[in-house]
Amino acid sequence: MTITQSDINAAATRIKGHVHVTPVMRSSAFGLPLQFKLEHTQITGSFKARGAFNSLLTADVPPAGIVAASGGNHGAAVAHAAKTLGHEAHIFVPEFAGPAKIDVIRQTGATLHIVAGAYADAAAAANAHQAATGALDIHPYNGPATLAGQGTCFQEWDAQGLDADTIIIAIGGGGLIGGAMVWFKDRNIIGVETETTNSMHAALQHGPETDVDVSGICANALGAKRVGRMAYDIAKGRDLQTLLLPDAAIAHAQKLLWQNLRQLVEPAGAAALAAITSGAYKPAKGEKVAILLCGANPAPIPI
Amino acid sequence: MTITQSDINAAATRIKGHVHVTPVMRSSAFGLPLQFKLEHTQITGSFKARGAFNSLLTADVPPAGIVAASGGNHGAAVAHAAKTLGHEAHIFVPEFAGPAKIDVIRQTGATLHIVAGAYADAAAAANAHQAATGALDIHPYNGPATLAGQGTCFQEWDAQGLDADTIIIAIGGGGLIGGAMVWFKDRNIIGVETETTNSMHAALQHGPETDVDVSGICANALGAKRVGRMAYDIAKGRDLQTLLLPDAAIAHAQKLLWQNLRQLVEPAGAAALAAITSGAYKPAKGEKVAILLCGANPAPIPI
Repeated sequence: MTITQSDINAAATRIKGHVHVTPVMRSSAFGLPLQFKLEHTQITGSFKARGAFNSLLTADVPPAGIVAASGGNHGAAVAHAAKTLGHEAHIFVPEFAGPAKIDVIRQTGATLHIVAGAYADAAAAANAHQAATGALDIHPYNGPATLAGQGTCFQEWDAQGLDADTIIIAIGGGGLIGGAMVWFKDRNIIGVETETTNSMHAALQHGPETDVDVSGICANALGAKRVGRMAYDIAKGRDLQTLLLPDAAIAHAQKLLWQNLRQLVEPAGAAALAAITSGAYKPAKGEKVAILLCGANPAPIPI
Repeated sequence: MTITQSDINAAATRIKGHVHVTPVMRSSAFGLPLQFKLEHTQITGSFKARGAFNSLLTADVPPAGIVAASGGNHGAAVAHAAKTLGHEAHIFVPEFAGPAKIDVIRQTGATLHIVAGAYADAAAAANAHQAATGALDIHPYNGPATLAGQGTCFQEWDAQGLDADTIIIAIGGGGLIGGAMVWFKDRNIIGVETETTNSMHAALQHGPETDVDVSGICANALGAKRVGRMAYDIAKGRDLQTLLLPDAAIAHAQKLLWQNLRQLVEPAGAAALAAITSGAYKPAKGEKVAILLCGANPAPIPI
């Protein structure tokens, strides 16, 4: 199963008006010229809104509506898209999703199920709901409509004048970077994971069915137990370079982002920048680097 | 004393590279289509960096360096510009500037003087320092280089494709809206003040030498005791419309801005949006409205 740039173009047309065209900016405040896309300003606070709208707008939604299990951002995006499009939604989140993400979901009016235990327990509860009701299950990252939807972020960035040799992107389950790899055929992409949310890195080393244990400050956003097969296949095919960063490097980048650009993101939202600010990725002289800021549902809620 | 669009163009050339080209975005999340300029992402967290760089780059800076009195954002901008350009800086702030603004100043390496009492006490201390040392005093809002510098924000916005009938801007001492009125000759400008930081409104009613008492959640940003004479004269000449909003409307807009665009600004930074979200300004059908977000040094510091 694969998608093409045409699928991304079609998705962009489909979701237009439902999502923000997110702003871009340049700054040399981090010691070198960088381009940023502020995708965390997206509706519901992350890029997930793109895939959610594209998934719902291409699906035959049954009367039982939508069901999703989520560490938070996917659930918020699906809940918002379902409400906007007039569908019932049941969202299952693990407790560790945290108050910010859970609040965003609650505000959409979706039916919220907070499940004790790990993400897998929330996913099991969502599966049971799906089996009992026939609701449509929207997977958080592994599906063609999801990859095409997330890919619109990069089509949009190109249209906004992106001028980069290298684009740095955080990896959770691979939906976002999957879309990026489809859109950017000839540019260098660097995927960033944390040492304790490393599903892509593990899969590229040990095979696509490798499961990892997840923990740390990005677990509720990047903490996929297994990377999506679609993203894995594309990454394997182009020999995607991934970096593993410690949580401390990401927390530091999150702080620098506030200090220098007054952008308050969640830890995962700063992971891509951390590749630069930690020195884990050292651009060559003259290499033009772009950073995607992907999510801003931090806890505690700042206001 | 007046300035022209040419002065703004010259300022833009002069400060280029020292300040961010701040991003713009559109959103309908507040019930109508709005355009935003995220000027709070400016270096040091407010538009003040523009005027500060333009002032320092057009001045003959004496060996004693720079002195400024400030509620916070002006001081941070002057301190940063002085450091960047290699000048010594003494910044005098009243205690109520708050920890966020004071921290930004401290981080620049400027000599920080925290003065007990009101803004007027900080200004008196700055004057004494100026008299004793011959340092160059950079006024926070009333000077041609300051108005021209702040005006670059609007020249830049036009170049980014601003398509608005009406631009809504917060007023403190009038440096920012002064620049806007010089740049936008034929567009409708709405100035927003709070009920307890209303220097422009009072001056337009009772004359340019009217002093007001300032208080409330925007006092450390919009709390000029008397509006700048340059801005007053331009405002009087074009019959500027100003709105007075209660603090509660501004706090609500600040929250909505976080909820919908994940932009965390200080209260004054949300004042312009509050004109819309409170219903104080009701655009005509089809009227295109743009909102300037001007500052993001909230207290407490969120991270």
